[in-house]
Amino acid sequence: MDPAPLAVSLGDPAGVGPELICEAWARRASERLPPFLVCGGVDLLSRAAASRGLDMPIRKVSGGAEAAATFPNALPVYGDIDGPYRPDEPDQHGARLALASLEQAARLAVGGEASGIVTGPIAKSLLAQVGFDFPGQTEFVAAACGVAAQSAVMMLAGPSLRTVPLTVHVPLAEVSGLLSTELIVLRAGIVAMALQRDFGIARPRLAICALNPHAGENGRMGSEEQEIIRPAVDTLRLRGIEASGPHPADSLFAPRARETYDVAIAMYHDQALVPLKALDFDNGVNVTLGLPIVRTSPDHGTAFAIAGKRTADPGATIAAIRMAGEAAARRATAV
Amino acid sequence: MDPAPLAVSLGDPAGVGPELICEAWARRASERLPPFLVCGGVDLLSRAAASRGLDMPIRKVSGGAEAAATFPNALPVYGDIDGPYRPDEPDQHGARLALASLEQAARLAVGGEASGIVTGPIAKSLLAQVGFDFPGQTEFVAAACGVAAQSAVMMLAGPSLRTVPLTVHVPLAEVSGLLSTELIVLRAGIVAMALQRDFGIARPRLAICALNPHAGENGRMGSEEQEIIRPAVDTLRLRGIEASGPHPADSLFAPRARETYDVAIAMYHDQALVPLKALDFDNGVNVTLGLPIVRTSPDHGTAFAIAGKRTADPGATIAAIRMAGEAAARRATAV
Repeated sequence: MDPAPLAVSLGDPAGVGPELICEAWARRASERLPPFLVCGGVDLLSRAAASRGLDMPIRKVSGGAEAAATFPNALPVYGDIDGPYRPDEPDQHGARLALASLEQAARLAVGGEASGIVTGPIAKSLLAQVGFDFPGQTEFVAAACGVAAQSAVMMLAGPSLRTVPLTVHVPLAEVSGLLSTELIVLRAGIVAMALQRDFGIARPRLAICALNPHAGENGRMGSEEQEIIRPAVDTLRLRGIEASGPHPADSLFAPRARETYDVAIAMYHDQALVPLKALDFDNGVNVTLGLPIVRTSPDHGTAFAIAGKRTADPGATIAAIRMAGEAAARRATAV
Repeated sequence: MDPAPLAVSLGDPAGVGPELICEAWARRASERLPPFLVCGGVDLLSRAAASRGLDMPIRKVSGGAEAAATFPNALPVYGDIDGPYRPDEPDQHGARLALASLEQAARLAVGGEASGIVTGPIAKSLLAQVGFDFPGQTEFVAAACGVAAQSAVMMLAGPSLRTVPLTVHVPLAEVSGLLSTELIVLRAGIVAMALQRDFGIARPRLAICALNPHAGENGRMGSEEQEIIRPAVDTLRLRGIEASGPHPADSLFAPRARETYDVAIAMYHDQALVPLKALDFDNGVNVTLGLPIVRTSPDHGTAFAIAGKRTADPGATIAAIRMAGEAAARRATAV
């Protein structure tokens, strides 16, 4: 049996989320996208489609099966999360719609009505004003699944590279103090399992980045490699995980080096995001690993300034939908 | 009048330096390289050329003018820095040759016999054993020119990107403490002048990286942007330098962003080197800015393991020679 459709959340309705969902649906055949529904409203999405010059049918559905049947002929919309389409005019009303859409999508996936979720870009500061009490969507989705935030692992994936930052939104000067052997072992273990289950990689190769330049050169430029990272690599290998490192980060993202691993585990935000965006800017997908549900997201923001102007690139949204569909299909087959 | 030839130093003779110099000479016509001489020995270079399958004339010369006249027909070799060719067998004897070659090349450039130097890759730990008392070649060359190490600025340049790391071989946890507004202003000012003088960019655009993720988000993830980096950008602009930032580093190296600046000033080693090597691994050039002489170097190491095996890529050596030649020609014209 085919898996249930994916549930896609709107993102902030004043951003590029709604129009990119419409664009992805319009390209469903050429991009061979799996069936998806949008948690949103027919009016809002129709106006977003029109702003993009898309003349496309958008139809309200009442569940996953109807959405799957509708998908070839019309964009299926679930729920009644509707409102005016006001690109580049973010406000609390829009933030409430974005939050309702996200909550709805997560509910559908947790309940099995959807096979996974693809979340559109939101503005965290606006969401916070309407009561959203999480650092980001990743933590929200983890909580919706009853998983500790610590065990939900963010991976960035593009055509050239998969990478996981172990620390994220913290000052660079605090990174060293936040790293521990236990953290690396826990997160890398989740990554290895998820690459097997969701990406079909039988024996994932994990390259663990060093923190310091030249991997610290045997302690001459920092001791974290010897004291924290190398013991983690050793422990992972004892557990049968094909981990290597700590590798000097600058060489690790060079073209030939990238062929030697399936994912690079980075120690901090920019160590992961700089190469990902340098190489795969328009196609980066943010995947949450370690959850009972599949969750992906285009790795870009709301881009309010270009919303409604037909210029936003749908590459990352399309890649996020495709990646979620592939992961959901693997989970469905494994069951 | 054409500028004097460049002086190229051997690098460690057990590494890939000698063979890549020969390969560059062999491609001088197709790559349109400016005249250069090697500070080395005829025997050693002949064997290195042979190991690469190159049948090429190598001739001893006694000065810059003779080297320039010889260059079209034979690889000009200056001095008598000769010895056995033993690829992948580094030792102190080789380190002494590498050091003598480097010293000779610097002397030729400081004395005006050469228009600039291109330094081959060395093994710092071996050089230290034979009395080399500098962190790297950059500091040595600065001292040879009578310039404070502080004012010699390392820039990495490839086809996709130019970038300057403000701190280099220090633990990541110490980077924040080493940054200051004064340091950024001093180095960025040297960079701006050098891009005008040596690269012919009339009004260089300098993009200054943030230290923290998302440029600190107004102090929520670190205060260095507000306290150190932004004041430096303001000062630079007051001085008429087209500086911008602090920019979140992950977006700054994405393709479209790279078109908006001529050089990215990075706060630490990997922030500069990760994107450079991800994008321009085989063609990265290390340039020293702020010196009275032109100095470039291929941005790779000795690669002992592949020396003498015909596989080393000459791209960076060729790019380093070409870049030095262009800078020297600009200085000669400006005089």
